[in-house]
Amino acid sequence: MKKTLATLAVMALSVTASAQQALGPGTGIVSPEINANNTVTFRYVNPKAITVKLTGDFLTERSVDMKEENGVWTYTSAPLKGELYSYNFVVDGKRQLDPSNVYMNRDIATWTNTFVMSTEKGDAGYYYSNNNVPHGSITKIWYDSEHAGMDRRLTVYLPHGYEKSKAKYPVLYLLHGSGGDENAWSELGRTAQILDNLIAEGKAQPMIVVMPNGVVRNPSAPEVNETNMFQPTMMNSRDQDTTPMEDEFPTIKKFVETTFRVKTGQYNTAVAGLSMGGRHSFAISRRYPGTIGYVGMFSGAGDGPQNADALAKLFAAKPKLYWIAVGSADGVKVSASALRDYCNQMGYPCEYYESDGGHIWKNWRVYLTIFAQKLFK
Amino acid sequence: MKKTLATLAVMALSVTASAQQALGPGTGIVSPEINANNTVTFRYVNPKAITVKLTGDFLTERSVDMKEENGVWTYTSAPLKGELYSYNFVVDGKRQLDPSNVYMNRDIATWTNTFVMSTEKGDAGYYYSNNNVPHGSITKIWYDSEHAGMDRRLTVYLPHGYEKSKAKYPVLYLLHGSGGDENAWSELGRTAQILDNLIAEGKAQPMIVVMPNGVVRNPSAPEVNETNMFQPTMMNSRDQDTTPMEDEFPTIKKFVETTFRVKTGQYNTAVAGLSMGGRHSFAISRRYPGTIGYVGMFSGAGDGPQNADALAKLFAAKPKLYWIAVGSADGVKVSASALRDYCNQMGYPCEYYESDGGHIWKNWRVYLTIFAQKLFK
Repeated sequence: MKKTLATLAVMALSVTASAQQALGPGTGIVSPEINANNTVTFRYVNPKAITVKLTGDFLTERSVDMKEENGVWTYTSAPLKGELYSYNFVVDGKRQLDPSNVYMNRDIATWTNTFVMSTEKGDAGYYYSNNNVPHGSITKIWYDSEHAGMDRRLTVYLPHGYEKSKAKYPVLYLLHGSGGDENAWSELGRTAQILDNLIAEGKAQPMIVVMPNGVVRNPSAPEVNETNMFQPTMMNSRDQDTTPMEDEFPTIKKFVETTFRVKTGQYNTAVAGLSMGGRHSFAISRRYPGTIGYVGMFSGAGDGPQNADALAKLFAAKPKLYWIAVGSADGVKVSASALRDYCNQMGYPCEYYESDGGHIWKNWRVYLTIFAQKLFK
Repeated sequence: MKKTLATLAVMALSVTASAQQALGPGTGIVSPEINANNTVTFRYVNPKAITVKLTGDFLTERSVDMKEENGVWTYTSAPLKGELYSYNFVVDGKRQLDPSNVYMNRDIATWTNTFVMSTEKGDAGYYYSNNNVPHGSITKIWYDSEHAGMDRRLTVYLPHGYEKSKAKYPVLYLLHGSGGDENAWSELGRTAQILDNLIAEGKAQPMIVVMPNGVVRNPSAPEVNETNMFQPTMMNSRDQDTTPMEDEFPTIKKFVETTFRVKTGQYNTAVAGLSMGGRHSFAISRRYPGTIGYVGMFSGAGDGPQNADALAKLFAAKPKLYWIAVGSADGVKVSASALRDYCNQMGYPCEYYESDGGHIWKNWRVYLTIFAQKLFK
């Protein structure tokens, strides 16, 4: 036993020494700390800084000053509701991630710290948490895109029990926004957690969710491949043309239908997306009428009159759901409500859902939570 | 068309406005930039900083000074060999991630920027890249651990073609080190890339690689669950007891063998791990003699004389490979070479491999690359 302990001590020493090569140790403080009264305390050690601010999507201000004592900067929030929150520090004017919080997410080119809190069962944060319910799996898998001339990566959520069952499942194709990739919905979007929780409560049907990369000229998210290491950008005129993703969609669908145990046919097939992915969903559904029974456009829509003939064919094939969701403060509200008005004018059975807020993940997670409950019933 | 462009402009505006809520824009500069002569240029914008240093595992020094011009700090390395490298900046004495490089990895509690470069086919960086070869998939899946009293997450690499074939595959169980989790081998360890490339070249058999979480009191990596949000630490006396993972291993193996198409039996089963995972591999193989045909201990071993009876049973069952790998500068070399000497003394067919360097991921990726080629042949 003595010998084992000696070995451990040597290991600890060698690990620490080598860790210093490129990696630092933990910070030794807790941040963020979710307090019993649902306030959250943030801490950051930096005795030399002159100003440290906190910016986060739970603040009503753009940023708040943190207070320093003995080199530790601290801020405690107001009581917060259950939600997934993003934040970072601003140290002497420069963005800085919280070195005490290992939980981070990348949105386009920017990493922020995140944390999930739930204050009561059934709040938003509850649905974004890995609760004590059966969990589905998340797979990153590559398909051969002859059309794009390369192998491309996509993310697949398989509901709990898929591997051991012989059942077939309906499929939701869930598309990201401009600058996003096949990781966006599974990470910031909390797809697995939302579906796990809804399915466990019987509120959503067990389904497969396919999250492809909607930027057809890229094989995958930037971090996967050194030859694909790039800094994603929000807007690219090529990405705003929906044609590449419309062209790619049948290849993705065929791959999914020949790789996984899938129920086919329009009433087993849904397409939804956020922002650019909402425009993709509009475009794909009007391009392939009669194949998609459920369409969800989250903060991204398309033009009714310009697509009059295609929409007439689409609605003649009787989709079960054509769902337009947008925030009241979102610039997309203009086009989203115009599409709703066009539907109403033409007698097409659209559903329109308006939430508070703007063009943000907080809304898209809520839209997925609502939309998933409407599918395949 | 005009209307579409107007919608886009509104979207861009709204996206930018909402992005400011918590997320910043891209930095507009390129860092790191791999130059034609295999030097690498790092850039960091901070006009207010007094000193900016670069620390990285490609430097012979612990850190180097970056030079400032017009607010941009720059450093260009010597020509580098193909490898996965880690680095970060030190700004006025504080660690800072490179905001221009979206490619990051977490090791225990510390995030660092990383980049992969390959200067010629077949170098280390080549094996860590997503080259133009068939890709396997990576799945995060949960299993019910009655023993641990919770659902626990593990990572599975399935070789290319698994989903569309009816073949069964041998399995390598690949275990992380202290403070690590089920993400360690698939991320910093580059398991999928190494296996993809070796299998494509015919150097490794197609195999399933299972990467469980070796800290049995945790359900998963910290970032997955708000109730599991913790700052991982390197050493914990409970983690250094191999018993929990020895007890858990049969549950994991049974889950894998009933969930995936697996060839069973000792000559289709391998266990390997790094550091604590090497000690787990030692412990699991001596606890279950005759069930594991290939054992790999990377920078982590066990005591021969203290386990004399168990090792006698293990070697009586004729494992095909008992492989001890360690770096010449690693503190574990003492125990690893002692185990080799014990094997030699007892006439057990151990293989011993000694590389340069210490207790670092650079070595563990190399050990996996070598070990995987020795399996199931």
